[in-house]
Amino acid sequence: MSRLTRADLERLDAGDPLAPFRDRFALPEGVVYLDGNSLGAMPKGVPERVHAMLTREWGEHLIGGWLKDGWMAKPLELGDRLAPLVGAGPGEVAVVDTTSINLFKLLSAALAMRPGRRVILSNAENFPTDLYMAQGLIAQLGGRHALRVVPEDEVARAIDDDTAVVMLTETNFKTGAVFDMADVTAAAHAAGALTLWDLAHSAGAFPVDLNGCRADFAVGCSYKYLNAGPGGPAWLFVAARHQEVAHQPLTGWLGHASPFDFALEYRPAEGIRRQVCSSPGVLGLVALEAALDVTLDADMTAVRRKSVALGDLFIALVEQECGDAGARLISPREAGLSPPWRRGSQVSFAHPDGYAIVQALIARGVVGDFRDPDVMRFGFAPLYQRYTDVWDAVAAMRAVLDSGEHRAERYRVRASVT
Amino acid sequence: MSRLTRADLERLDAGDPLAPFRDRFALPEGVVYLDGNSLGAMPKGVPERVHAMLTREWGEHLIGGWLKDGWMAKPLELGDRLAPLVGAGPGEVAVVDTTSINLFKLLSAALAMRPGRRVILSNAENFPTDLYMAQGLIAQLGGRHALRVVPEDEVARAIDDDTAVVMLTETNFKTGAVFDMADVTAAAHAAGALTLWDLAHSAGAFPVDLNGCRADFAVGCSYKYLNAGPGGPAWLFVAARHQEVAHQPLTGWLGHASPFDFALEYRPAEGIRRQVCSSPGVLGLVALEAALDVTLDADMTAVRRKSVALGDLFIALVEQECGDAGARLISPREAGLSPPWRRGSQVSFAHPDGYAIVQALIARGVVGDFRDPDVMRFGFAPLYQRYTDVWDAVAAMRAVLDSGEHRAERYRVRASVT
Repeated sequence: MSRLTRADLERLDAGDPLAPFRDRFALPEGVVYLDGNSLGAMPKGVPERVHAMLTREWGEHLIGGWLKDGWMAKPLELGDRLAPLVGAGPGEVAVVDTTSINLFKLLSAALAMRPGRRVILSNAENFPTDLYMAQGLIAQLGGRHALRVVPEDEVARAIDDDTAVVMLTETNFKTGAVFDMADVTAAAHAAGALTLWDLAHSAGAFPVDLNGCRADFAVGCSYKYLNAGPGGPAWLFVAARHQEVAHQPLTGWLGHASPFDFALEYRPAEGIRRQVCSSPGVLGLVALEAALDVTLDADMTAVRRKSVALGDLFIALVEQECGDAGARLISPREAGLSPPWRRGSQVSFAHPDGYAIVQALIARGVVGDFRDPDVMRFGFAPLYQRYTDVWDAVAAMRAVLDSGEHRAERYRVRASVT
Repeated sequence: MSRLTRADLERLDAGDPLAPFRDRFALPEGVVYLDGNSLGAMPKGVPERVHAMLTREWGEHLIGGWLKDGWMAKPLELGDRLAPLVGAGPGEVAVVDTTSINLFKLLSAALAMRPGRRVILSNAENFPTDLYMAQGLIAQLGGRHALRVVPEDEVARAIDDDTAVVMLTETNFKTGAVFDMADVTAAAHAAGALTLWDLAHSAGAFPVDLNGCRADFAVGCSYKYLNAGPGGPAWLFVAARHQEVAHQPLTGWLGHASPFDFALEYRPAEGIRRQVCSSPGVLGLVALEAALDVTLDADMTAVRRKSVALGDLFIALVEQECGDAGARLISPREAGLSPPWRRGSQVSFAHPDGYAIVQALIARGVVGDFRDPDVMRFGFAPLYQRYTDVWDAVAAMRAVLDSGEHRAERYRVRASVT
């Protein structure tokens, strides 16, 4: 590849079909935000929608809002809206609770569906909360089960006839490496096991095809690539074929077949609604609603195309501009423009001074994040990033390394979040 | 009592020390809102606080908000602010998840703390979701435990040496009758059992004294008398003396001793933080924050005094004005101005045409609600109700009964919510 210049990237921005989306997000002046993989930027429609819900719905209709403003219906309604983004059908997704809690529900259901099998199989690189939830469930069930954790490239081979469920985060939160969902799911099914996919770093980042891959269960959050705000509501997917046998233990009244009968005995609702537990948090739901309005206007194929281009350019530029500085690519170099995806929508480099470099970049307005032990993570959100942002981020990295400002005393003590 | 007139109630409003609070709530013109026991009215500070969080925190600080704006600390910080309202100490309350899910956590912890005992004891009048959550947990644990449900006046006598935990909603959602928390807790402890109190209809409604009663565990919501909005975040209480042994199964990363170490093994945090599971929903939390600003400005003794007066007046007026219409008081007549409380902050009448009367009242702008089979529920929220509201509500009831408008065809099919 010939040497890239900023003018090359300006040309890409000029021809970017997704460029108009940037204006639908609130982005602080002078910031290059490459941390949408942790917390997405705010769609401008969110404050407006939330304010309307507060003042025109709650403020005016009070209790009447549950029906009049459709609050009660939102968990399934938003599930149906979100479904196409993950390759699910109508009635297969509900927006409820948190990612961890949804994982607990569906792990419970999966273990109960495979009563003779003992193992939850996962990988050592999984986001720790997923492993912790499995550990909590296993302890609660009296230790009859075991969590088996293997390196990610050994997962498919490790599935055997004692595996009840394969629980994986599709996209590795540190490296951005993506499991081959179709392949792993087929291997699990061949061995009689179920699959539970955590799509935290996948939904909204690239096209996901749960039903095309014959996935059984999935969970995900809304605050990364779906831009619903900090701690926004999570969602879960149960394949239609499993819905009548997927019994989860958090059997709250809104998952009851007739919640308003106030019967003494729980009787699960049909379909996905039995996965709902409690009165939904309406504020978070309407924020997600406004955020989805933006994402659903975008063509996910175009999003993927730009995501790959941004990531590829970032890799090329870091190697071109900072190649001598010891940054080592730990993300897959090939992203994949068609499935199987290899790299999600982030690029990570390892560097011995990774923490300090990330802090120095933030001080310059280039926001990525750091993960132990030495990982600098940069997320690409094609709806609000420009190609020139990539140039400016790498230029800032070059400036940090040239000046040595990352060696400042204030970057010696670590503080990090999500 | 001599016959009451509206002028009597106007005098009470004029001398009401809590009267200025009404102006801090958004209330639609011409509505008498007596359903704050289902969904509290909106404090005017909420939209402002939520908008600031969206535009000035998320919109400007992006990922930085987790530390810069203290989002991460809110579950425990708001727990500490809420604690005095329920008689808890610092570090004993966390604002997390939903009431039902918190109940599941603490029921699990309680059963594990009483390994030789089989029974969760509750009452038939409990809000069904509490019973359902117990049923879900018991099924998950393999049926070694049992949920025993007795009439509320038999609970204390039913506690025996097989009772692991007594799980009660302190205030009956239909009748407003309140358990004697000190008495039941003492009976439970005498038998070696634990107590788990659902304070959905108690917190913010009257002074609760968890530690004074030696309660073990409690849960509650924020959307009734705490006015945090539809589906607002729930909270839980674990008495300090139990915190190191109360192991709950929803072991998410934010309950880990060192969440940002990303260790593979879960290790519970010290204290109440191990009850936290997932990234908190910040929108709901800041709404609660603004709502608490109002409640915490009020003297709960004055709130209780006015609540009792409103309820007593409502009973007297319904009996004076509608005494011939067949409405039968099902709430305790004596409320209690000091513990033990007998009646919460609602008054319920049974009437064969209860559903239709409530609908006709709503059409006249008097909002109460209906519960099967024949219960008309009216909640009193002393921070935003006037004494004259009580008069106007009863006058509307008299007018409905006189005109027979509740016999209209449109009130024959029931629809009801929360």
